[in-house]
Amino acid sequence: MADDRKLTTRAADFSGWYNDVVLRAELADYSPVRGCMVIRPNGYGIWERMQRALDTMFKATGHENAYFPLFIPESFLHKEAEHVQGFAPEAAVVTHGGGQKLAEPLIVRPTSETIIYSMYAKWVQSYRDLPIKINQWANVVRWEMRTRLFLRTLEFLWQEGHTAHATHDEAEEETRIILSIYREFMEQWMAMPPVTGLKTESERFAGALRTYACEAMMQDNRALQAGTSHNLGQNFAKAFELQFQSESGSIEHAWNTSWGVSTRLVGGLVMTHGDDNGLRTPPRLAPIEVIVVPIWKSDAEQARLLEAANRLRDDLTQWGGRGDDRLRVRVDAREGVKPGAKYYEWELRGVPLRIELGPRDLEKQACVAARRDTREKASLPLDALAPAVSALLERIQSNMLATARERREAHSIREPITYHSFRELMAGEGAFVYAGWNGDPEVEARVKAETKATIRCLPDPEFRSSPAPSRCLVTGEPARHEVLWARAY
Amino acid sequence: MADDRKLTTRAADFSGWYNDVVLRAELADYSPVRGCMVIRPNGYGIWERMQRALDTMFKATGHENAYFPLFIPESFLHKEAEHVQGFAPEAAVVTHGGGQKLAEPLIVRPTSETIIYSMYAKWVQSYRDLPIKINQWANVVRWEMRTRLFLRTLEFLWQEGHTAHATHDEAEEETRIILSIYREFMEQWMAMPPVTGLKTESERFAGALRTYACEAMMQDNRALQAGTSHNLGQNFAKAFELQFQSESGSIEHAWNTSWGVSTRLVGGLVMTHGDDNGLRTPPRLAPIEVIVVPIWKSDAEQARLLEAANRLRDDLTQWGGRGDDRLRVRVDAREGVKPGAKYYEWELRGVPLRIELGPRDLEKQACVAARRDTREKASLPLDALAPAVSALLERIQSNMLATARERREAHSIREPITYHSFRELMAGEGAFVYAGWNGDPEVEARVKAETKATIRCLPDPEFRSSPAPSRCLVTGEPARHEVLWARAY
Repeated sequence: MADDRKLTTRAADFSGWYNDVVLRAELADYSPVRGCMVIRPNGYGIWERMQRALDTMFKATGHENAYFPLFIPESFLHKEAEHVQGFAPEAAVVTHGGGQKLAEPLIVRPTSETIIYSMYAKWVQSYRDLPIKINQWANVVRWEMRTRLFLRTLEFLWQEGHTAHATHDEAEEETRIILSIYREFMEQWMAMPPVTGLKTESERFAGALRTYACEAMMQDNRALQAGTSHNLGQNFAKAFELQFQSESGSIEHAWNTSWGVSTRLVGGLVMTHGDDNGLRTPPRLAPIEVIVVPIWKSDAEQARLLEAANRLRDDLTQWGGRGDDRLRVRVDAREGVKPGAKYYEWELRGVPLRIELGPRDLEKQACVAARRDTREKASLPLDALAPAVSALLERIQSNMLATARERREAHSIREPITYHSFRELMAGEGAFVYAGWNGDPEVEARVKAETKATIRCLPDPEFRSSPAPSRCLVTGEPARHEVLWARAY
Repeated sequence: MADDRKLTTRAADFSGWYNDVVLRAELADYSPVRGCMVIRPNGYGIWERMQRALDTMFKATGHENAYFPLFIPESFLHKEAEHVQGFAPEAAVVTHGGGQKLAEPLIVRPTSETIIYSMYAKWVQSYRDLPIKINQWANVVRWEMRTRLFLRTLEFLWQEGHTAHATHDEAEEETRIILSIYREFMEQWMAMPPVTGLKTESERFAGALRTYACEAMMQDNRALQAGTSHNLGQNFAKAFELQFQSESGSIEHAWNTSWGVSTRLVGGLVMTHGDDNGLRTPPRLAPIEVIVVPIWKSDAEQARLLEAANRLRDDLTQWGGRGDDRLRVRVDAREGVKPGAKYYEWELRGVPLRIELGPRDLEKQACVAARRDTREKASLPLDALAPAVSALLERIQSNMLATARERREAHSIREPITYHSFRELMAGEGAFVYAGWNGDPEVEARVKAETKATIRCLPDPEFRSSPAPSRCLVTGEPARHEVLWARAY
């Protein structure tokens, strides 16, 4: 952390600012392999907490974890017609193993529908074997040409859920349950409120019947597709002969869903909450929630302050008021680094709360608590500090969500605008624009070509405008749907 | 679980028995990709609990998790002379990506020393940047020709720790700390007591200065190398220019360690504890600790018994006597499956404790607890059931460890034996043989060729014989070391 150069500001260059924060907060680093990144402990700690929260939610809704092979026989990818078109161009191909050329090349999984449904076909005979609700935490590879740390990398980490059901409606319900889990996770843990809805045909998953997505607004007013949940219909079941005998004795194809979120979420967290001083991490996802910085001038003070800081840390970490979820606290006891430099560094790294403890604070049996989100400072008594810190962290968490939601609404446009204004807006500061669409894919393609904006989704009811837009943004024809337009990552 | 064929017995065919248990207990399945397996929820649940326990121990000793790329440039593998000899023959090679032939082929990581130390070289300038103590949970690929479920697969899951230190002694200490963590985990969680010690030159990791290992005895008296911890010296630091400025200002190469355990441990658990009825899982690693089987004959009884079984489960899971670590309990409420069939199935799957609850038990406000390890049954009062069940699970855990330890000692030979007897033993029932060795690699190679037994390790002090063997098992020359001989997986 010896690097004292100022961060690029968001206003000057949002993309440059993003890279600066990711690298300088040591969330990730470039690797010697083109397009592949290294996730450093600071970034991985956030991902681990994301994993833990999501995993708990998946298990609470009856899902189990399993693990399927990294390699997929090339022929498998070709069994579902849309799927191969979507993924074959991005394939990483293993042609040699153990010094021999392989009879059939292997694809490094870009997603695991094909290999997983081929296994389900082996495991399922009767309706009694359904539903299967399995998730896996894994790495996948898509040969992207233009990569960005966390947002788009050749290899990334994710979870992919794959379920099989006896009926269409049960699969559809599963798809929606997962979408609501993703939304709850993004709001309650990431403090990143997404708009949820249905993808248009041109944006849906290769091989799906319907794709639902969470679309979050970043601070440059672009959308980040942060999680998707697919109703796959019977497409893969037919391609892989995933059949079962129904209760009435007939042989039927199963109905599948798949759904995933990835390390891209860490990038979304940075672009939702970061500021010109670096990262801001929502407390619930912060590997360190509280950094304690003792301040001393003499050797005698040093011993006394260090001891007090360690005691304060122990008081906080041993407090049982949050049950199993203990406060995550660290003391920065480094010598030869000034307090100001420590503040700068921990702000950069996004620790939600800093506690400063100097000789005069100690005399008053108090400390100074500095919030990372608002940068407000307040003196807190050392007596009964843990409940006060815990309450403050909750306020930070909810304030970050409220701020992000307000920001999104302030940059959302629901009033009818002309296509001319829309083009200017998308060429400039951007926005989430809710507007009517005549349902024609050619209109969608034209807007994308002219403005780079795309239909992010047909918003779910609670995100729709009232009254509903009556005219198509582009053609002025009667609107068939209300859609959300934005430029996207 | 409709498969009622009898399991192969251990006595008839240990290897066939092992495959039967893994497949029928639904721990894993064969996949369509040669040598790659699918880890099913029953097996993955055990692995998840292993991960959680080890991860906690790593973090308690100052390690952090991170993630490094799956792909390694082919040239990296060649930078350390021994390393490339060890791993290049087993490489899976990606030659094409995104439809293009790659300028430099990429190796799917067989282990990550090369890519990780190339990153550490970028991150480390001064002694202040040391130590680095990072672990990653990842998949790796080694192109094995003969594969076995869990024990030897093309792809496997593992953790690999990689550390960098300023001195040899600090690296050596780290290597030993990790070995002791592995041993404690295997004893206290897996109930699989290993012998620990140093590998000979011929068995050490490709590129290491010293390799330490945990060697556990399976029920066929063969050794399973269950975890290794390597002091890499400065070999990789020199190959990847991992240097730092010392406190005195000189430029020095860092000292590295690496260490890992893998999903192979699940295979070790099966071969340590399984019996002719299937798997036995140590309670601490069991995804389900207690299976409750309600027994009814009439519809009226069914409603009453199901209600009582659910109440019993709730009482157990809500009990706080183990703190955060709640009892893991499930009720088998399936209709149309007889109690006996349920018992058979849960025994096969290795659930440590079964609770049978019938109408007469309920009248007496009692239930029957059946241990999976000893198959003993006892009646327990429903009142204050949770502490009784918890204590019983602890007894099962410690009994399994004691049984495994006794078994190992009963099949260990410490008295001097002739090489002739040794050969007969290794061709027959096998054993762990502690004996003298003159230190000559040619003797080691000859024994391997003649008996398939290898030196598993130079045992750590507490595993050595007293008095120490004075003569070499093979040549009769004075012994330089006491070594542990066994046939191994």
